[in-house]
Amino acid sequence: MPTVLSKVEIEQKLQKLTGWEYQDDAINKKYLFSDFSEALGFLVRIGIEAEKMGHHPEIFNVYNRVHITLRTHDVGNKVSDSDTLLAEIIESLV
Amino acid sequence: MPTVLSKVEIEQKLQKLTGWEYQDDAINKKYLFSDFSEALGFLVRIGIEAEKMGHHPEIFNVYNRVHITLRTHDVGNKVSDSDTLLAEIIESLV
Repeated sequence: MPTVLSKVEIEQKLQKLTGWEYQDDAINKKYLFSDFSEALGFLVRIGIEAEKMGHHPEIFNVYNRVHITLRTHDVGNKVSDSDTLLAEIIESLV
Repeated sequence: MPTVLSKVEIEQKLQKLTGWEYQDDAINKKYLFSDFSEALGFLVRIGIEAEKMGHHPEIFNVYNRVHITLRTHDVGNKVSDSDTLLAEIIESLV
């Protein structure tokens, strides 16, 4: 079961992750790619990792822009350690 | 160049497309799949068709839910014939 993180714990985790923000009980980052093909490749790679973890992001995409939002349904839509772990994994894909 | 459609033309087109709605100067549809894997497969197939057309949808996905919104940047973010054509193609993928 994922563990809910406190605001301080979230902010400590995000210090190690460039461009991620804590907002509205979720963490999110906006990525910009050179074109749609790159953005789609990124989405597929995120999808494979999310499926392995059994934890899925909210994804918004239009053309070269990808906006990822992470929160955990199983703990009342708060930020958990699963979210910061998935954020680390997503960062490692870029 | 895409051609802007009138409200009447859009509504005529949407009568042939199940579940599509005209809202906020765009057309959109919410799809529900059995799981994330199916949703991701759908997104990839949409992506390939969008790239062929050079016309890209706004995509929102979380787990088995996919929300597609279409409007045309090149005609001032209105609905054009490119949007209804892409909607038809997307429907053919399901």
